[in-house]
Amino acid sequence: MADGSVSLSGQLAATTLHEAVSSSEVAKAEFSDRVPIRSVVSRPDGGAGLAGHRVRIGGWVKTGRKADKDAFAFLELNDGSCPANLQVIVDASVSDLSPLVPTGTCIAVDGVLKLPPAGTKQKVELRVEKVVHVGPVDPAKYPLPKTRLTLEFLRDFVHLRPRTNTISAVARLRNALAYATHTFFQKHRFLYVHTPIITTSDCEGAGEMFQVTTLISEADKLEKDLIKNPPPSAADIEAAQLLVKEKGEVVAQLKSAKAKKEDINASVAELKKEKENLAKLEERSKLKPGIPRKDGKIDYGLDFFARQAFLTVSGQLQVESYACCLSSVYTFGPTFRAEHSHTSRHLAEFWMVEPEIAFAELKDDMNCAEAYVRFLCQWLLDNCFDDMEFMADKFDKTCIERLRMVASTPFERISYTEAVELLEEAVKGGRKFENKVEWGIDLASEHERYLTEVKFQKPVIVYNYPKDIKAFYMRLNDDSKTVAAMDVLVPKVGELIGGSQREERYDVIQQRIKDMGLPIEPYEWYLDLRRYGTVKHCGFGLGFERMLLFATGIENIRDVIPFPRYPGRADL
Amino acid sequence: MADGSVSLSGQLAATTLHEAVSSSEVAKAEFSDRVPIRSVVSRPDGGAGLAGHRVRIGGWVKTGRKADKDAFAFLELNDGSCPANLQVIVDASVSDLSPLVPTGTCIAVDGVLKLPPAGTKQKVELRVEKVVHVGPVDPAKYPLPKTRLTLEFLRDFVHLRPRTNTISAVARLRNALAYATHTFFQKHRFLYVHTPIITTSDCEGAGEMFQVTTLISEADKLEKDLIKNPPPSAADIEAAQLLVKEKGEVVAQLKSAKAKKEDINASVAELKKEKENLAKLEERSKLKPGIPRKDGKIDYGLDFFARQAFLTVSGQLQVESYACCLSSVYTFGPTFRAEHSHTSRHLAEFWMVEPEIAFAELKDDMNCAEAYVRFLCQWLLDNCFDDMEFMADKFDKTCIERLRMVASTPFERISYTEAVELLEEAVKGGRKFENKVEWGIDLASEHERYLTEVKFQKPVIVYNYPKDIKAFYMRLNDDSKTVAAMDVLVPKVGELIGGSQREERYDVIQQRIKDMGLPIEPYEWYLDLRRYGTVKHCGFGLGFERMLLFATGIENIRDVIPFPRYPGRADL
Repeated sequence: MADGSVSLSGQLAATTLHEAVSSSEVAKAEFSDRVPIRSVVSRPDGGAGLAGHRVRIGGWVKTGRKADKDAFAFLELNDGSCPANLQVIVDASVSDLSPLVPTGTCIAVDGVLKLPPAGTKQKVELRVEKVVHVGPVDPAKYPLPKTRLTLEFLRDFVHLRPRTNTISAVARLRNALAYATHTFFQKHRFLYVHTPIITTSDCEGAGEMFQVTTLISEADKLEKDLIKNPPPSAADIEAAQLLVKEKGEVVAQLKSAKAKKEDINASVAELKKEKENLAKLEERSKLKPGIPRKDGKIDYGLDFFARQAFLTVSGQLQVESYACCLSSVYTFGPTFRAEHSHTSRHLAEFWMVEPEIAFAELKDDMNCAEAYVRFLCQWLLDNCFDDMEFMADKFDKTCIERLRMVASTPFERISYTEAVELLEEAVKGGRKFENKVEWGIDLASEHERYLTEVKFQKPVIVYNYPKDIKAFYMRLNDDSKTVAAMDVLVPKVGELIGGSQREERYDVIQQRIKDMGLPIEPYEWYLDLRRYGTVKHCGFGLGFERMLLFATGIENIRDVIPFPRYPGRADL
Repeated sequence: MADGSVSLSGQLAATTLHEAVSSSEVAKAEFSDRVPIRSVVSRPDGGAGLAGHRVRIGGWVKTGRKADKDAFAFLELNDGSCPANLQVIVDASVSDLSPLVPTGTCIAVDGVLKLPPAGTKQKVELRVEKVVHVGPVDPAKYPLPKTRLTLEFLRDFVHLRPRTNTISAVARLRNALAYATHTFFQKHRFLYVHTPIITTSDCEGAGEMFQVTTLISEADKLEKDLIKNPPPSAADIEAAQLLVKEKGEVVAQLKSAKAKKEDINASVAELKKEKENLAKLEERSKLKPGIPRKDGKIDYGLDFFARQAFLTVSGQLQVESYACCLSSVYTFGPTFRAEHSHTSRHLAEFWMVEPEIAFAELKDDMNCAEAYVRFLCQWLLDNCFDDMEFMADKFDKTCIERLRMVASTPFERISYTEAVELLEEAVKGGRKFENKVEWGIDLASEHERYLTEVKFQKPVIVYNYPKDIKAFYMRLNDDSKTVAAMDVLVPKVGELIGGSQREERYDVIQQRIKDMGLPIEPYEWYLDLRRYGTVKHCGFGLGFERMLLFATGIENIRDVIPFPRYPGRADL
C-alpha cells in the first residue's frame, strides 16, 4: 500500500490480517505502516512465534521506566487494538530516553521482536532500532497520571479518558455489540432504515422532548443587525411620506399642465422610487428584536421547518411505515429525552435498536428478542474475551458467567398476570418490596430484578400487560384488559427490551387514541398504515447502553457511552 | 420457531436461508411463518425447482385483476425482500376476489408453488389454497394508485412511498451500503465510535447550526402556570410585609414584657412562617414569562445542559480523540446543517461516514478512501444486482457500468496545483466555465466534474489544497502555502469525499487557529490531543446520500433518505 495504488484485495488483506494471528507472518495494519499490537500479542503463542521479525509499532506509553543506570528503558506500549500491551525496550544509544518514559507519551518505533528472558510474563518483546516519532507528555501537566483514577473523575476528561484501560475496553465492547447488532439483523435479512433524528411526531408522548430551532439564533442575528442599522424612526417615515406626497403633487401638476410626456414620465419614476423607499422603511420599522410571535404565541411558521420540531424519542412509528411494505426492518440510532434525571441509568442522548417485523405476532417478537440478546452475548464471548476478562477482573466477577448463562439458556416466558402472582407469593413468603404489588401496577425495577435474579435466575420475558399502563399502539388482546406487550428482563439491569405486537385494526387503534385522550390529527399518517393494506406486525426496542451495562457490569451509564449527555453536561 | 423456544442456531438458520436459494428447500423467514418472496423468485432457476412446495406467502398487491369471468384473480405480490414480484393465483372458490385485487392490498396466503403454463415470463407461481389475512384498500382513497407517480409527488407521502418500486429499491441499496460500510471498517479493525449528536463544540464553523434547547418549552410551561396561578401583586407583597412587621412587633413586645417562654417561642414561630411566606411571594413575583435573560442576553445557564447546545455538523473532532489512543476508528451517524439551501444536493439532516486513522499520513488517507469507495461499488454489484438493474432501467442507464468502472479502476491522483493547470489548459482549449480558474480558488462543482467526467473519465483524488480555503485542522505542508487535504471526485456527483491529514504539531495548529481569527478557548480540549502524546493522523468524511446518488443515478437527494428534512419540511 506504500506506493499509493490500491486494489480491492484490501479486504482480503484484512482477512489475512486476522488469520495471520495464528501463522508466522506479521500482518501490517491497513492504511498505516505500523503493525497493530494485537497482531503480535493476541496470538495463541503470545507472539513468541514472531521472534526475529522486524516491525514498526506505534502506541502510547502506559508505564515507562529507565533501568540499569539509564542504559535502557522499558516501555509498556498500547495502541488500542487490544487490552494487552507490548513490552518495548529502548537502548540509550538509540534515543534520548527521558522523553519516552512518561505515561501518555506517543511513540512510533522500528525494531525487532525478540523472545524475552525466561521467567518473564510476556511471550515476546520489541527491541527498538529506531525511534520514528515521539509525541511527548509533560507529566507535571498531564491530567491522567499512572495512578488509578475513578470513573467519576474521568468524566471531566471525555476527550482523554479513552486512553485508560477501562474506557478503551468499553469502546471495543461497544463497537463489538454494534457490529453484532448489524450482523444479526442482516443475517436475518432485516433492512436497516435510518429513521429521522429531527421529528415533528411525538411517539406517544414518551417523555420530555428537546426542541430543535433556528428562531433564537435568527433573533440574535436580527438584534445585532438592528443595533448596527437601527430601524427607521417615526420622523424618518414621516419624511419619506412627505417626499411621496411632494412627488405626487409634482406629477399631478405636470399632468394638469399637460407637460411634455418625458417630463411626466420622469416625475412618475421619481414618485415610484420614493414610494418604494417608503415601503422599505415601513417594512423595516416593523422589525422587532426577539423571537417572532403571532396571536400571542411563538410564530413557528418562521422556524426552519415552518413548524415546531424536536429530537426523536424513538424511531418506532417511522420504522413501522417501512415494515409495512419491506416486512423486516430495523433502526439503530440516537434517541433523546429531556428529562432532569440525575440517575446512573438515564442519559439525555442514548442509542436504541428497534426492529420491526411484518406478518408476525407477539410470539415471533419474543423469539426475535431472545435470539438477538443471546446472539449478542455469544458474540462478546467469541470476539472480545480479553476485554471481558478485564471487566471481570476490575468491575464484575460474574460478568463472563452471566454472558455464558444468557447465551445458552432459553428465556423464561410468563404472562404479566403470572408475574404478579409470583410477586404476591414472594410477599407472602416475607419478601419486602418498596412498591405495592397488585394486578394493574407497572412493574418496578425491584420487581423485575426479583423475577430475573432471584426467582428464575435467568432472563425472563413478561408478556400481556394491562392496557392502561401501556402505549396506544399496542395490540389489544381478546380479554380487552391486556395488550400484546412484552418486556425482556435480565439479571443486573432488569428491563433490557420493551416490545409489543402493534394494533393493526384501524377501528381499534383509532378508539385507543381517543380513549387515551390523544389528538387524532398528528397520527393520521400512522392510521394510514392501517387504512391501506394493514398487516399484523410487531417490534421492540433495546436500550443499547443498558446492554453495555449488562455485559460489562459497569454501574453508571455515563461511562458506557463515549460522550455522555445529561442535565448540566454536554462536553465537546 | 413456532414453539416459543429459540436456540442460537437462529443465525445458522439465516445462513441456511440464503443458501437455500440454490437448493430445493424453501426457507422460511425467521420470526414469521411466511416465506420471503426473495427465497422463491431470486433463485437461479427463478423458483422453478420449488414447484410442488406448500408455503405461506405475505405481501402487498402491486397489480391485481380478475380473469375468466371472475373465476379467479391474478395478483402480483411484493413483500419488499426483493424487487421481483410473485404471481399469485386465487380461485373464486377459495375467497371473495374483489377485496384482493386493489393495488396496495396486503394479503397472507397459504398455497402451493406451481410451474406456470409454458411461454409465460415467470418461472413459478403460487396457487392459493387459503387466504389467511387481508388488509384491504379502498382504491378511491388510496393515495398511491397503480399509475406511475413522480418522485416529487411521492415526497408528500413519506410514510407510504416505500411501497413504490423506486423507493423500496433505494431502501435496499441504502441498507446494503450501510452494512458494506460497517463490514469494510470492521474487516480493517476500525472501531465504530458513537460521536455525540448534541454538541457544544462547533466543527470549524462548518455551517449554520440547529440549536437544541428546552428553554422555550419551559418558558411555555411557566407562562401557562402564571396564567393559572398569577404572580402576587404589589399589594399581596405589601400585605405580607405588613404581616411580618406585625408579627415582629408582637415578638418584640412579648420579649420586652418578659412574657412566658412558650408564648415567645410561639410568636417567633409565627414570625418565621410569615417571613417564609413573604420570601416565597417575592421569589414568585420575580417570575416573568418568556425566555430567561441575564445581562441582556439569554440565560443559557438555565438551559438543559447549562450552556448553549447544537446539533453536530460533523463527528470528526470528537472521533479524533478516540483515534488518538485507539488508532483506527470511524463514526457513522446523522449530521445537520441549518442552511436555507433549496437545492437537489442539500439536506438539513444527512448521514456521514468519518474514519480517522492514527500513525498515518495523507497517502494512507487516500489509500483508505479509495479502497472504501471501491469496496462499496463492488458490494452493490455482488449483493444488489437486481436493484441496480431496476435503477439502470428506470433512472440511469450507465449506473451499473459506473459501479464496475470505479470498482476496477485505480483512482487518478493529482495535486491541486496540477488540477488548476489542467483546468487552465481546458480553458485555453475552449472549455467554458462559469467560475474563474486560477490558483487559490475553491474548485467549483463544474471544475470537479470536468476533471473526473471529461479529463480522466474515472475517479480523481485532488490533494494539497491552498491553506486559505481549508479548515484550520488540516496539516500545513512544508511549502507553507498548501495543506495536506484531499478530495475524492467521482463522475455524476463530483466531490464524494473530503479529507485531510490533521495538524498534529501543537504550535502550528495553535497559530492556525489564531490566524483564522477563531477563539482558542473552545478548542482547548482539541489542543490537548496535541499537548499530550500527539500522533500523526488523518481521516475523511463521505456524504452517505451522495454515495447513494452516485450509485443509483437518482437526481434529488430528498429521494435517497427515508425521511428528508429541508427548509420548510420535516414530515413525521
